[in-house]
Amino acid sequence: MSAPVYLALLHHPVVNRDGEIVTTSVTNLDIHDIARSACTYDIAGYFVAHPSTGLRALCERVSWHWQEGYGAKINESRRVAMELVHVVPDLEHVLAKIQSETGRAPIQIATSARLHERPTTSFPELRARIENGDQPILILLGTGYGLSPDVVDACDALLAPLRGPGEYNHLAVRAAAAILLDRLRAT
Amino acid sequence: MSAPVYLALLHHPVVNRDGEIVTTSVTNLDIHDIARSACTYDIAGYFVAHPSTGLRALCERVSWHWQEGYGAKINESRRVAMELVHVVPDLEHVLAKIQSETGRAPIQIATSARLHERPTTSFPELRARIENGDQPILILLGTGYGLSPDVVDACDALLAPLRGPGEYNHLAVRAAAAILLDRLRAT
Repeated sequence: MSAPVYLALLHHPVVNRDGEIVTTSVTNLDIHDIARSACTYDIAGYFVAHPSTGLRALCERVSWHWQEGYGAKINESRRVAMELVHVVPDLEHVLAKIQSETGRAPIQIATSARLHERPTTSFPELRARIENGDQPILILLGTGYGLSPDVVDACDALLAPLRGPGEYNHLAVRAAAAILLDRLRAT
Repeated sequence: MSAPVYLALLHHPVVNRDGEIVTTSVTNLDIHDIARSACTYDIAGYFVAHPSTGLRALCERVSWHWQEGYGAKINESRRVAMELVHVVPDLEHVLAKIQSETGRAPIQIATSARLHERPTTSFPELRARIENGDQPILILLGTGYGLSPDVVDACDALLAPLRGPGEYNHLAVRAAAAILLDRLRAT
């Protein structure tokens, strides 16, 4: 028994370096890189959430290129990974899609490099929950300087921050996604 | 006692999807993302190696932007990470720089997602070697479809490939770098 794990990358509401709530633009490589990591670590779906119709159209165009356009002809491994990508407006749509796919609401797990007041769930704890559970798990990643405090507070749990040996903790979201999937899913 | 660890990203000689030896172009985000991961995991230096004078100039320009140009004014955390970046023509220059910095030749560790005939070193083995040693360690990453077989054969050891639960193993080099640093250096 193992719970299906989903990832969502939110571009809103996230914070900027001054802690203000903003909407970030799209970084193309966030789509491919995280899709490839998700495919490597057997993730059930990867949602790219953006409130702008125009930027969702850009994401869909990138996704189309690798799934059906010229990219699909020259790069089979990327085509396969891009099948996991769903472009949606916001978290509500992510939750609705998971509900319709699995028949259940997911357990929502926030991620953050910043300190929050609420206690965190360790990687081994979440890993055990995935391996021994069946309720879908949704891991939320924030672009910019991270998920807004309201999103973090509304989640069921907050994953422990990724830290190296020193104080520096400014990983790219693509790097953070890769590391957390490896910690949760590597065999 | 702990050995200094260096990373090098080679754009030549690497293989393409048909196994031919090629030179790849530069991906801007390979510079920032891997620099930020290297900074997080306390790496002594990150080398971006490219044989083309023009593409090295591009890398230097990107590096200058974040270290001294406008980027340095608006993004202090990226500025700090970019201090680790050295742009060089090839592996020989990487080795010479480490020799001059540390007074010793590094142990060269190849990485590859493909199968090779030689035995691999596990992550716990390399981690122990770093933690208990003092000879510098240089980890080589290949762009494209990975380091050329000759480069892999010439290294002192080959690190075990990163694998998830399934067969898919097409991580972005930026993702692979992040994961391997986490496995070797996370506290």
